[in-house]
Amino acid sequence: MKNLGILLSGRGSNFEAIAKNVASGHIPDARIAIVISNKENAPGIATARRLGLTASVIPSQGKQRQDHDREIADALHNHKVDLVCLAGYMRLLSPWFVQQFRRRILNVHPSLLPAFPGLEAQEQAFAYGVKVSGCTVHFVDEELDHGAIIVQKAVPVLDSDTEQTLAARILEQEHIAYSEAINIVLAGKFEVTGRRLVTKMTAE
Amino acid sequence: MKNLGILLSGRGSNFEAIAKNVASGHIPDARIAIVISNKENAPGIATARRLGLTASVIPSQGKQRQDHDREIADALHNHKVDLVCLAGYMRLLSPWFVQQFRRRILNVHPSLLPAFPGLEAQEQAFAYGVKVSGCTVHFVDEELDHGAIIVQKAVPVLDSDTEQTLAARILEQEHIAYSEAINIVLAGKFEVTGRRLVTKMTAE
Repeated sequence: MKNLGILLSGRGSNFEAIAKNVASGHIPDARIAIVISNKENAPGIATARRLGLTASVIPSQGKQRQDHDREIADALHNHKVDLVCLAGYMRLLSPWFVQQFRRRILNVHPSLLPAFPGLEAQEQAFAYGVKVSGCTVHFVDEELDHGAIIVQKAVPVLDSDTEQTLAARILEQEHIAYSEAINIVLAGKFEVTGRRLVTKMTAE
Repeated sequence: MKNLGILLSGRGSNFEAIAKNVASGHIPDARIAIVISNKENAPGIATARRLGLTASVIPSQGKQRQDHDREIADALHNHKVDLVCLAGYMRLLSPWFVQQFRRRILNVHPSLLPAFPGLEAQEQAFAYGVKVSGCTVHFVDEELDHGAIIVQKAVPVLDSDTEQTLAARILEQEHIAYSEAINIVLAGKFEVTGRRLVTKMTAE
């Protein structure tokens, strides 16, 4: 049984999707060991408690990044977390934290990286006029929106789209992609060569 | 009947696909008025002649960019070309040329722009480890691989892919995407707002 740790700052819709897929057995042999928010009033914390999960607020405000990250890491270690899943965690992680959980931190980004990194990726893509956008689940490394890519899903941009309808369709794919990526990583059957992640063939 | 002008420097596999779609009626009410290469021995010129098309070599070597572009523009004007299609034309066009044919020059690029502009886009995408790549047909403006996007096609990157197999699958989609884009532009039923191109609804 592997332990997932969720970091969020808001609603955490990707956290909810992960919780649903754990509950339904689509993410087998895993459980959510702790949900941590850096914001007092993150709705995701209320959701976690409603689902009977351990939920913890570790406020970041006014703290040095690495000091706050040490508190987060302590909480994750105390709950024996194997894999850290960022779900709308609106704070950069320190290099120290990334090293503590090297290749054990995942993030989802609402574009086909390396296109449109940073904030408001869906709006960036819409304004650029792409006909295909999507989402990316990747390992977190020291650079923003940069680590090796585990899963990407393409989402067509329709003539009838607004930024909002596009973002909503991308979010649906994020929910699917994130659980696929968690399963790949928990199964451990992958290799990363350079930046390229490939699922290992099973000989059986 | 609209006149297409093709610029190429090599084999011109996208030119061949366009020629096939004109012949089969998939690009209706259009014909290839002239095929121009800037290279003496471009295989695309031999193909054009075999297909009974007007083909012309206008060598670029040793010429100032704009001087060469004026020769090309003269040839296109002499053949009453409505739409210029770049098909592996390995030379940057001058701003002067772009202005002569504003929104009447198309190019195809083997990635989902704005990701992986420039040379060897398929190799760049493969090395980056993306799980989705594709191709883009766009208007040519004064910046490299930059004009408004008309059509994009997503192509999944498979674990079993090499740079070569990926490039081959992207090329198949280029052939489809290019003719779709030509039809959209020739029909004239589109609007560009900012960078975003949207097909105009027909009231009928």
